[in-house]
Amino acid sequence: MTLSRRIVAECLGTAFLLAAVVGSGIMGEKLAAGNIAIALLANTLATGAMLITLIFTFGPISGAHFNPVVTLADASQGGISWSDVPPYLAAQVLGAFIGVATSHLMFGEALLQFSHHVRAGGGQLFSEFIATFGLLCVIWGCARLRSEAVPVAVGLYITGAYWFTASTSFANPAVTLARAFTDTFAGIRPTNVPGFVGAQLLGACAATVLFRWLLPSLPSEAKDVVFPHADIGRQ
Amino acid sequence: MTLSRRIVAECLGTAFLLAAVVGSGIMGEKLAAGNIAIALLANTLATGAMLITLIFTFGPISGAHFNPVVTLADASQGGISWSDVPPYLAAQVLGAFIGVATSHLMFGEALLQFSHHVRAGGGQLFSEFIATFGLLCVIWGCARLRSEAVPVAVGLYITGAYWFTASTSFANPAVTLARAFTDTFAGIRPTNVPGFVGAQLLGACAATVLFRWLLPSLPSEAKDVVFPHADIGRQ
Amino acid sequence: MTLSRRIVAECLGTAFLLAAVVGSGIMGEKLAAGNIAIALLANTLATGAMLITLIFTFGPISGAHFNPVVTLADASQGGISWSDVPPYLAAQVLGAFIGVATSHLMFGEALLQFSHHVRAGGGQLFSEFIATFGLLCVIWGCARLRSEAVPVAVGLYITGAYWFTASTSFANPAVTLARAFTDTFAGIRPTNVPGFVGAQLLGACAATVLFRWLLPSLPSEAKDVVFPHADIGRQ
Amino acid sequence: MTLSRRIVAECLGTAFLLAAVVGSGIMGEKLAAGNIAIALLANTLATGAMLITLIFTFGPISGAHFNPVVTLADASQGGISWSDVPPYLAAQVLGAFIGVATSHLMFGEALLQFSHHVRAGGGQLFSEFIATFGLLCVIWGCARLRSEAVPVAVGLYITGAYWFTASTSFANPAVTLARAFTDTFAGIRPTNVPGFVGAQLLGACAATVLFRWLLPSLPSEAKDVVFPHADIGRQ
Repeated sequence: MTLSRRIVAECLGTAFLLAAVVGSGIMGEKLAAGNIAIALLANTLATGAMLITLIFTFGPISGAHFNPVVTLADASQGGISWSDVPPYLAAQVLGAFIGVATSHLMFGEALLQFSHHVRAGGGQLFSEFIATFGLLCVIWGCARLRSEAVPVAVGLYITGAYWFTASTSFANPAVTLARAFTDTFAGIRPTNVPGFVGAQLLGACAATVLFRWLLPSLPSEAKDVVFPHADIGRQ
Repeated sequence: MTLSRRIVAECLGTAFLLAAVVGSGIMGEKLAAGNIAIALLANTLATGAMLITLIFTFGPISGAHFNPVVTLADASQGGISWSDVPPYLAAQVLGAFIGVATSHLMFGEALLQFSHHVRAGGGQLFSEFIATFGLLCVIWGCARLRSEAVPVAVGLYITGAYWFTASTSFANPAVTLARAFTDTFAGIRPTNVPGFVGAQLLGACAATVLFRWLLPSLPSEAKDVVFPHADIGRQ
Repeated sequence: MTLSRRIVAECLGTAFLLAAVVGSGIMGEKLAAGNIAIALLANTLATGAMLITLIFTFGPISGAHFNPVVTLADASQGGISWSDVPPYLAAQVLGAFIGVATSHLMFGEALLQFSHHVRAGGGQLFSEFIATFGLLCVIWGCARLRSEAVPVAVGLYITGAYWFTASTSFANPAVTLARAFTDTFAGIRPTNVPGFVGAQLLGACAATVLFRWLLPSLPSEAKDVVFPHADIGRQ
Repeated sequence: MTLSRRIVAECLGTAFLLAAVVGSGIMGEKLAAGNIAIALLANTLATGAMLITLIFTFGPISGAHFNPVVTLADASQGGISWSDVPPYLAAQVLGAFIGVATSHLMFGEALLQFSHHVRAGGGQLFSEFIATFGLLCVIWGCARLRSEAVPVAVGLYITGAYWFTASTSFANPAVTLARAFTDTFAGIRPTNVPGFVGAQLLGACAATVLFRWLLPSLPSEAKDVVFPHADIGRQ
């Protein structure tokens, strides 16, 4: 796979992920008649389902990171070369903004918005640390399976984490940044973004250090993160 | 597989798909006590679950297209011969009408109805473009996996797209046409059908052109769309 | 596998299936504060999830029929010997009653009850015909996959059919009979049982005749219905 | 895998399981506006999804028991040596407490709490017997599949059992003990813990004795409970 194809896949996959998160948040809130649990159930269902689908769709091309901390963690173990990291990160951030804009266009919202949704406090930051720590545990723990179960495991993790963390589990700096630019259900106030991103980086580090010890073979699995993307098409 | 067996499978699968969409819409609306989000959750669950099941059931016979734009896109890449396209399309449209009629009979509704559900405006059309673009991305991206994960990926895509698009993701001209003939939850006003179908065709074209570049091996996978249907039964 | 082990597996699996249907109906109705759609969502989730689990658990032993029309259809294609049919059917009916009684004990209900839930009329009977026709389509269509996807396909079919049929898809004479003996959410008035069972038999016949033509290899797959149970344990 | 790695995996996996159970209970109750069924649906979704994910993540390291009765049952069949049982049990109990504390920190709750949630009576005890009996049936029945379907089967079992048992299926002594220390949705009054644990032990025994007869090959599968953890990494 050429780099250009891989970064288009990362960009497109992250765009669909954000469209799913933001769009289903708008739809859920609009239809749920004020019951936030029902809106969040719809938001969870759409996000989890799309994450599984998108890893299957774009994973064989780019690995389906869709997330700067995944790309950084993977580079730290030799799964992706450091020279590929900047284009991956740029593609993820660009894709995230495209996804938010696409949602706004579909639902007739103003294209440019800033969120007023306050997500602050120690519980929120600790939640993001735990959410991202857990996400990387799942990715590292499942990598050696090299299996079609991995997209399901990752999607179900986010499905669960939407509900068991106080922050509803952003766990992704590109997603966090882009969600600052939507004043809808899924938004986050721009001033709360740096804290979230910092907690996410710490969580990803902690999980990677831990799994480096738990699974001595980790570096040899890293090239297959999140989904094997080397020699698919053979079978 | 003879052509007659394949078109019966397409017809029957599309009939069950429409019965699921329309029937669960009626049931959901009837029981949800006015909470549209709960009705749509039920509608989503039933549609996504049935789509997965139907691809497993009829995929090994006909490929489980159930959708004229999938058949056309597949023919454009050589996955199905152009001479098989008209019977496939006819079977899908006929099946869609049978499915709507079956729902009406089960729920004691008048057999022939015309929808008054207005689904118009740029946001709706853009939603159908995105919904169908995404569906074809999933189908083309997953085709080379040639795997039993594909029905799950397609079903989960529709599960997500019901919520993240403003139009609830028809993404299928046969489905759109038949849903004009039910004045229930899932209906669409007949005059809104041409716009939806046009947007769906554009979305499918865009995704096919894009994946032709993303996956140079696309034509060799096309014969296995949506589900491998050549030499199953061997194992 | 000896016959005694197989009939214990059929009995136990059907008991758990009924416990799931009836118990989750009681729990759902109790907690849903009068919103029947929410109660039915819980009922659907529990039934679909348990059906998948139970086919994985008992399928390798007995095939996981749990349903007299599945056993009869399978015998008609040579998948199970006719002499095994009476013990299978007896085990299924006995298991169904044990499952209902277990639910009643868990929820502090009277052990013996008769349902007053009226489920009558042409729409209900036609629904049972379609529900059982669809179930057998799924079972026959998926049998040649001989795959671990089959339990998922069957469980998702029932998940969908709970919502798209007007009768909530009993599709099983043993289940229907036992549900006459619970005056809770899942019950059916005893006088409505014969009509349901008749419609189920017709639906199963129609699907079997159709798939006999659609898949000429059907008889050679029948021994693996619903789940391969001959030589598991090898791998 | 060294014992130290395996007990860290057991501890971490059980911590995430409890965080999911308790955290999603808090979130669900907070958002559901008094509709307990919706809160329990969210609680179920998060628990089932996380259980599947956690078995995929930690199963290849420790087998993913996360449950003292699973470890004891597995030891009784020779799947784990008796000398490994005490560290496994200690890791599970420690992990369970860490998980509850993590939830409390994320949601800004007092770290140390005692539940006032009464869960008493014969129906509750019988429910725990059935819930644990069923869980061990699933684990033993699926063990010989040695397949990636097993995490799904176990997760879906708990998904169903949350709804069809009157106790919402604790089915795990470490989980039960730790849930006594949270005065939130998922709590259980400390005085009700011994009855629950006793019923769970009886249920696990009954299922193990039954499957010892149903599957004569049981002892040779026991080393792969709940997930094969010997020689993964090969592929």
